[in-house]
Parts: sequence; C-alpha cells; structure tokens
Amino acid sequence: MNAYKAPLADIRFALFDVLDSEQTFARLGFGEINRELVDAILEEGARFTETVIAPLNHIGDQHGCSLDKDTGKVTTPPGFREAYLQFAENGWAGLTSPADFGGQGMPHAVGVPVKEMIDAANLAWGNFPLLSHGATEALMHHGEDWQKEVFLKPIVEGRWTGTMCLTEPHCGSDLGLLKTRAVPAANGAYAITGTKIFITAGDHDFTDNIVHLVLARLPDAPAGSKGISLFIVPKIKVDRDGNLGDANAVRCGALEHKMGIHASATCVMNFDDAEGWLIGEPHKGLMAMFTMMNTARLAVGLQGLGLSDRAYQNALRYSRDRLQMRSLSGAKFPEKAADPIIVHPDVRRMLLTQKALIEGGRLLGYHGASLVDELMHAEDAADRERADALLGFLTPIVKACLTEWSIECTYHAQQCFGGHGYIQEWGMEQLARDARITTIYEGTTGIQALDLMGRKVMQLKGAGLRVFLGMIEDFCKAEADNAAVAEFIGPLREVAQEWQQLTMRIGQNAMADADEIGAAAWDYLFYSGYAALAYWWARSVAAAEASAHPQAFKNAKRETARFFFARILPRTRTHAAAIASGAAPLMTLNADAFGE
Amino acid sequence: MNAYKAPLADIRFALFDVLDSEQTFARLGFGEINRELVDAILEEGARFTETVIAPLNHIGDQHGCSLDKDTGKVTTPPGFREAYLQFAENGWAGLTSPADFGGQGMPHAVGVPVKEMIDAANLAWGNFPLLSHGATEALMHHGEDWQKEVFLKPIVEGRWTGTMCLTEPHCGSDLGLLKTRAVPAANGAYAITGTKIFITAGDHDFTDNIVHLVLARLPDAPAGSKGISLFIVPKIKVDRDGNLGDANAVRCGALEHKMGIHASATCVMNFDDAEGWLIGEPHKGLMAMFTMMNTARLAVGLQGLGLSDRAYQNALRYSRDRLQMRSLSGAKFPEKAADPIIVHPDVRRMLLTQKALIEGGRLLGYHGASLVDELMHAEDAADRERADALLGFLTPIVKACLTEWSIECTYHAQQCFGGHGYIQEWGMEQLARDARITTIYEGTTGIQALDLMGRKVMQLKGAGLRVFLGMIEDFCKAEADNAAVAEFIGPLREVAQEWQQLTMRIGQNAMADADEIGAAAWDYLFYSGYAALAYWWARSVAAAEASAHPQAFKNAKRETARFFFARILPRTRTHAAAIASGAAPLMTLNADAFGE
Repeated sequence: MNAYKAPLADIRFALFDVLDSEQTFARLGFGEINRELVDAILEEGARFTETVIAPLNHIGDQHGCSLDKDTGKVTTPPGFREAYLQFAENGWAGLTSPADFGGQGMPHAVGVPVKEMIDAANLAWGNFPLLSHGATEALMHHGEDWQKEVFLKPIVEGRWTGTMCLTEPHCGSDLGLLKTRAVPAANGAYAITGTKIFITAGDHDFTDNIVHLVLARLPDAPAGSKGISLFIVPKIKVDRDGNLGDANAVRCGALEHKMGIHASATCVMNFDDAEGWLIGEPHKGLMAMFTMMNTARLAVGLQGLGLSDRAYQNALRYSRDRLQMRSLSGAKFPEKAADPIIVHPDVRRMLLTQKALIEGGRLLGYHGASLVDELMHAEDAADRERADALLGFLTPIVKACLTEWSIECTYHAQQCFGGHGYIQEWGMEQLARDARITTIYEGTTGIQALDLMGRKVMQLKGAGLRVFLGMIEDFCKAEADNAAVAEFIGPLREVAQEWQQLTMRIGQNAMADADEIGAAAWDYLFYSGYAALAYWWARSVAAAEASAHPQAFKNAKRETARFFFARILPRTRTHAAAIASGAAPLMTLNADAFGE
Repeated sequence: MNAYKAPLADIRFALFDVLDSEQTFARLGFGEINRELVDAILEEGARFTETVIAPLNHIGDQHGCSLDKDTGKVTTPPGFREAYLQFAENGWAGLTSPADFGGQGMPHAVGVPVKEMIDAANLAWGNFPLLSHGATEALMHHGEDWQKEVFLKPIVEGRWTGTMCLTEPHCGSDLGLLKTRAVPAANGAYAITGTKIFITAGDHDFTDNIVHLVLARLPDAPAGSKGISLFIVPKIKVDRDGNLGDANAVRCGALEHKMGIHASATCVMNFDDAEGWLIGEPHKGLMAMFTMMNTARLAVGLQGLGLSDRAYQNALRYSRDRLQMRSLSGAKFPEKAADPIIVHPDVRRMLLTQKALIEGGRLLGYHGASLVDELMHAEDAADRERADALLGFLTPIVKACLTEWSIECTYHAQQCFGGHGYIQEWGMEQLARDARITTIYEGTTGIQALDLMGRKVMQLKGAGLRVFLGMIEDFCKAEADNAAVAEFIGPLREVAQEWQQLTMRIGQNAMADADEIGAAAWDYLFYSGYAALAYWWARSVAAAEASAHPQAFKNAKRETARFFFARILPRTRTHAAAIASGAAPLMTLNADAFGE
C-alpha cells in the first residue's frame, strides 16, 4: 500500500540545474564523471531501492530483528541479508570510497541522492551500510597502513560492516563521562572492557565480521573528554595479515525494543577483555570521532529527507484518489460522488508544506554533501577553508532541520490519510515512527542547536554564516534584473539582514551571560534553516527558468516558492521574537517549581 | 518506569481559584455540591487512576485486544475487565448523568478532571467508557421513554457500554456518502445492513451487552447528509420491557492494527439485517449526532491534555535526575559528575513549553466543560444562549489545540529523554503513539478548523468570538490597577484586537472567494488557541496572586506566564502572516503539478 518511487526528476534538477554539479565535478578533478554516468547510477539506484529494498520495509517493521541469547547472534528480517549481498556485490557499499581501497571513487554529491533513495525505501535496512561509513572514514583518516589494509578494504567492498560504539548507559551527549576501559596487552593490542548501548548494527547476519569502533579510556587517561581513545574491535579477531582468528570477546547482550526502525538492530554490546587496536593517538579519540561526525550528521539529515519524500508521495496519491466533500468554492468534479480531497485548501496546505520543505531541503542537504567534495578535493586552500567553514556551519542545520521537518512531513502525510493514516495497513504510521529517531540519534536537535550556536557561530565567529550570506548577496546581485525572481529578492535580502543582526545580538548578549547561547540556540537554528531555504527556493526558481524544463515544471517551482515565502518563511517571525526575549523567561523559574 | 500522579494541585487551582466553580455550582442549582465533596471525588479519582488503570497502560500496549474470528468476540488485555467492573461498581460510569437514570448528577466541570486523569492514566482503557457518553447523550436527548428505560439506564449504571457507528470505508469526514441501509421490519424495528469501520469499543468483554448507535439510510431517504437516520442496535436483542433475547446480527469482523492505543478495540462492524430501533426523527440522524459532538470533541481534547501531562511529569523527573554536561554559565552541581539536564536552557525550553501548554490548556478545556453545565442548567435564557455560542466557538479550538499540543508535548518529553525516549522500556514512545490518534478521530484538526472558521465564525457571525472578546475586555478593565498582572494586559489587549481584525478580514475576503475560508482556517484556529491561552495565563496570574497559595506557587504561575507571553504567544506572528497571505499561495498550483 505504501509504494516508493525515486524522485529522479527533482534529484536531477537539484544536482544539475541548481548545484551545477557537472561543472563542480570537472573542477574538483572528477574528470570522467559526467552527467551520463551519474544518470546511470541514479537510475540503477532507483531500480535497486524501488524494487529490492522498498518492498522489505513493511516486512522489516513487522518482523524486527531477533537475538539468540545463547549465542549473542542477531537475525535480521526475511530478505534483508539477500538484499545486502546484492548491494555489496553491485559495489554500492564503496560508492564514495577511494578507488585505492576498492571503492568507486564517486563524489559525495552523487552518493547523497543514492543515500536519500535508500533511506526513503527502507530506513532500517539503510542503517546497516550507513554505519560502515563512520568506520570507513575513521580508518581512512586515522588508521595505520596495516589497519587500512586489514579492516578498511573489506568494509569498502561490503564484505564486512562497521559500527560506532560511543554511548553508555549513563552517557550519551556527554561522552566525557564514559567508563569503558582499555588495558595494553602483550601483542600491541588492548583489552577492552565495558558496556555500550544503542549500538546500531552491533550484530547481524549480513557479513562474517563486524568492525566496531569503540571509545574507551586508557589506564593513564585524564578525566573527562580529553582522556578518551578510539579502538578497532572486530567481532572475529584478525591478525595483521588479515587472517581471521577466533571470536573476539564482544557480544550483543540485548536488543532494544523501539518505537520504530524495528529492523535496525539496536544492540547492547558487552566487551569483556575484547582484543582491540588503538586507532589514532591516545586520548584523542573524541577528536577522531568528530572528524566523521559531519558526514554522519549529514547522513541522518538525508534520512529525514527520504522519509519525508516517501510520506509525501503517498499522501499526494491518496489526496488525489480519496473523494470526500465538495470544494467550498463549488464542486470541482461534479461527475464524482464527491471531490478528491486535494481540492480543499487545508489539504493543499499540508501537501505544499511537505513539497516546499522536501524540495528546498533536498538542496540544503545536497549542497552540504557537495561541500564535503570541495573540502576533500578543491585545489585552492582558500576554497577548502571556505568549504570547511560553511560545512561546519550547515551540518547542524541540515541534520536538525531535515529531521525535524521529517517529523512534520510524516505528520501531515498521516493527517491527509485521516483514520487510515493511523493504521498499519497503509504504512504511513511506520514512516512517522521511523522518522522519530532521526531527531534523537547522532546528536539530538538540542545538541545540533548548541553545536551551531556555541561552536560554529560563537567560537568560530560566524565564519560559515559569512560565507552563506555572501552566497545570498552574490545571488541577489546576479539576479537583480531577472524578472522571474524579482518578487523573491526583497524578502530574501530582508531575512539575510535579520539573520546577521540576530547573530550579532546573541553574540553581544552572550558576553554578559553564557546562558544566552543555549537560550537562543534552538530558535536560531530554525531561523537559519528557513533563511537557507529562502535562498534555495529563490535559486530554484531562477534555475528552473533558465533550464529547458517544460513550462509546467517551471510553474510548479515558482508556485511552491511563492507558497514557501508566503506560508513557511513567516515562521522566522516567531523564532526572531523568541530570540529577542532572551534567556530570562527560560532561566528564572527554580528547578523545584516546574512541578511535583 | 512511566508513573502517573494526578496533578490535583493544579486541577484544584483551575477549578476553584480561576474558574470559581464553587460559585458556579451554586448558581446553576447544584446546591449540595461544595468544594469538600468535589475534593473527595478528585482524590478518589486520583487513587483509582493512579493505582488501578495507570499500571495497566503498558500491559495494554503490549497485549492489545484480540479477536476470535469464529465468534466475533474481542478479548481485552489482562486486567482491563476487572478495572472496568470496579469503575462501574463505584459509580464512575454515570458521574455526570442525571440521577433520574441512575447517574450521580455531577456537573461536567467535575467530570472533566476525572476524565483527564483517566486519559492520562490509560487512554486506551478510557475509550471504552468514553464511547458510552455519546450513546448516553443521544438517548437522553432523542430517545423515546421506553428506549431510555431499556437502553440508557444500563449504560449509565455501567452494566452496558455504547458505541458510535458513523464511519464507512469510503466516508469519514463526509458522512453524506454513507451507504448502510435500514429497512422497516414488522415489529416496529428496522433491519440494518452495512459495514462500519473504525468503531471504538465495537466489541469487548467488559459487559454482557453493547448498544451501538448507527447511522443508516431509510429506503425513502434523500441523497446526501439530509437522508441519514440514527438507530439503536444492541449486540444482544432487547425487547421493550428490557428482557435480553438472542444475539443480534451485528458482529466484529476485524480489529485494526494501529500505531497506538493498542488496547482500544477498533473494530470493523458488520451489520447483517440486524435489529435496530429508530432514535429521533427519520432523516435527522446527523443532526442528532451533532448534538453530542460538542462533548465528544471536548472529551478528545481532554485526552490530549491528559497525555501531555503524563509525558511532562516523566520528562520533568528525568530532567532532574539525568546528569549530562555542565551548565554553560558554570557548574550548578559541582559535587556531581555532571549537572542535571534541567539546568540547560534548551531543556528548560522544552519543559516550560509543556508546562505552559498544559496548565493553560487545562483552563481552556475545563472552561469548555463548564459551558456545558451553563448550557444545561443556567436559569436565564440569555445566559444559555451566550454559553451555547461560546461553547460552539471554543469546542473546535479545545479539540484541535489540546490534541495538537499533545503531539508537541509528547514530542518534547521524548526529546528530553534522548535515546531512552525512543525505546519502549521508558514508556514515553507509547504516549507519543497514543497521542497521534487524537488529532484524527472525532474530526481531524482540519475538520475542526473548518468547523470553527466556516460554521462558528462565518455562518454564526462570530457570536462566540464576541463573547470571548468581551471576557477579555472585562478582565483587562477589572485588573487595570493590579500591578501583579500589569505586564500582561497590554499584550493581551493587542492580541485580542488583532484576533478581531483578522476575523473581519477573513470574512471580507471570503465574500469574494469561498476558498479563503478554508485557506485561513488552520492558522485562524491556532491563532485563536494561543489568544485564548494568553487570556487564561493572565487570569491564572491574577487568580494565583489573589489566592492563599504559597509564594512559590504564585511565582511559578507568573514565570510560566512570562514564558508563555515571551516564547509561545509569538507563534501568532506566523499564523497572522499566513492568514494575511490569503488563498492564492494554496490554490494556484494545479493538482497535477504537485508531483508524479
């Protein structure tokens, strides 16, 4: 009942018409990657996600994963393993990994639409390969040569998968509190002991081995976050020549029962003097982890986008089919028993909200991914620095906004279905349950807001914001004489100006009281998200007009942009007012007085 | 892990300090109902809900209801039936029903806090007695004497329960499309044939009999909504003397598998020449149904309130216990490993949002219930008319806002828990799943918005709004010299003025284009909700100051009011801007152009 069709037309529009990716690929040295090749990848991605993993989405929700307590082995739902083997065999696992390690060497800007399709088709399934990316990046940037050879290659080839073992029962956002210990062993390895929770893909039946990246403390570690080191702990021991040995002392002790993503194995992992290898420098593990956080957070943002899009597709179909009541302005389909509900303004409000947040959000997310390519491949150091600042600034916005919007979009989509949105048969409620994790894991929305406000704006003095404001100004100047976008330029300039003013005001207030940062953070983050979307919607209209797309396509972009500016962008009014009210309304009430 | 404690202090504050219920009861002729008696009822309600049904909430979610396909019998989760028998034995079923029919004759203003407690403790369980209320009201207002004697009394006494059978597979919001047929039979009864879906409590094991109220068409019925009649269809046939006979030809064909409220039996009900009795006039069934809709919709609003409160209580407890990171403005609990997360501004934002919406929403909901008492018992016809207009105006606001805020509050509460909010163990995700139905059933939020804007404002020329604006003006005048509320009077007057202006503007626009009504409806509804809350928060501060409560209580009300005015009320900025943009941004895009 809940189909998925990859939105290839809009994906292509985003990549080629708005982001000029073909030019970017050439500039960054991806000489052989042209539009034809990318199109072929997108089409094959669409085929795989629509026909192989999308049909497993409901099955996965119904079956979930199961744990054999005696062996600690996790079994995934029917069909999941076979789909993964096909995925690995076709080279998808290493799509954006360097060719040196067996990857396809594609830009992240190409990886990201494939990721969106996977997440839309089957979020829980997508979590298994997703977690490998973290391990890949950690190994690529911090691994010794033998570690890359032994651990990285099998992951890139999809023969093994990876995990990230950070959280413990008493610490999630605050990793400085973690207790897992690592004691040097005779062979240069370490004995790792501790319990990690919420470990995605901690065990499964896809591959023979699993490479856990584990944060732990060395015996001489300083307290807090500066005493944490990063270790590789394979499920099956591996020697330096890559030979598989005995089972390691790491084991899944329990599976969490969750609201959604039932098919994603969320494991309690017990390490009991497990053999692990230090990766990177001692006590610098948290920094190593942070280097892979940008892409992990962008990836979770993409999960939100994918879920929103699948929900929207189905809500749109239903709203065209479902007959209920007559349009207040007169019957639109008098020959039918009633009008399809898409004639009703409030149903259109829900659909257009989704459409505006999805298509605008797609550009927000894809642009973020393209900055990873700039950062890794731009020739000029100044370009890389600029990309770094902008990527750091945009990452919490992409992560938080695309996931929060997925809560909103799946909500509206369910609402379009009425009572049918609440029952399992139609699949809409699963999308809402699955979406609910995305604003929590990989740093809650509150954590993203603090990262944006405290670190990216305050500590780094708004370097990323300046780059983005420059992009807006460049666009406004370049399009000054373009009648097609004239109506959007004024409002865009206004919001950019207010964005800058709010940033300065918060900075000033924070000098007197550090709590002003936390008090403004959440509203500032969403203000930034809507401001960024205003830019992308204005650019979308300009790009559509300049393209060879049919008039209907251009009209749809323009009307959706108008909807965005009229109905969504005014959300900035509320956020600006909340920011202006400062910290006092939040901080004055005594903690005892919140309730019993 | 997910406890419930009835918020008796705030319930009493709402009833006795803000709403002056004791005076109202005396004025309306409930002479013997004094504060002492109400206190005793509230305390017994708290005991029953906290200790009997709250502990069954998780069990109900895990077990759900089950259907024996061979017999059509539904079994409820363990403990549910026993709790119901206790509920009925203690007279709760007829708490607000007239003594003439075996009820306790309590005002709705007393019934409503008990209802809030039941919903907070166990929403799914609460649905079984809830549905009886609809049947009670229909029988009381439209039943013949023998029908009242035979069907009403056992329901009031809790020996039987009721249902409301409206929805069919092809029609929910648009009942004019319904197809169930009623053919006159020899004994004055009718043979009812058709399929109804989404029938809450359609079958269960609580009672021997169930009284279905069924909408169906007589053979000579005109098409559309003016050809629908209302019938009583008992599960077990009953003669005019109340003797039980054979099983009727009505049977549960399937149970829906839902996102939440698993323990609420949502049935497909098949009527196959079932014996039914006409209630009220032929073809006037929809009107009869509408008379009970106000209280049913208020009741669902209360469900939202209850869930919000339970979620908040648990989030607050967790936020005080969970240690994570240090306050940015310096460690607040240096002796602990980290500060409790309630020190962080963004956690406070989430908690205060819940607190402001719950305590303000409690007054919104209780005030609505008190209007039912006015409508039924006020001596003066002008008072009843005034109450009728105000109740009609407020009902969609109460229903939609309290339920939408329950989505928001359960969301924030989950978010406070981080990853623990997503797993079943802590119970927070169940509250979010359960809440999700409340914005759908008994008329979606979009339907409430249309009811408010199209019927209560446009058709009835804003009579209810005028009453509410008069209350605001009276309050502002009366408190003009009260320093304790001075800071709120200006903003309250402003929002009242804008509320009135927006209403007039929409009315003018609607004369040119009826779609302006639907286009403004949703934003107008929420504008109204926040405007109403501004009034209740200002009144709360005045009432707290004038009361004998300790200073800490008064401070908490004042600081929460400040938070509301600074951080929540500005949401009206966005709604006002959306309304101002009119229908064009919603209506211009061709339905074909929304997507593939």
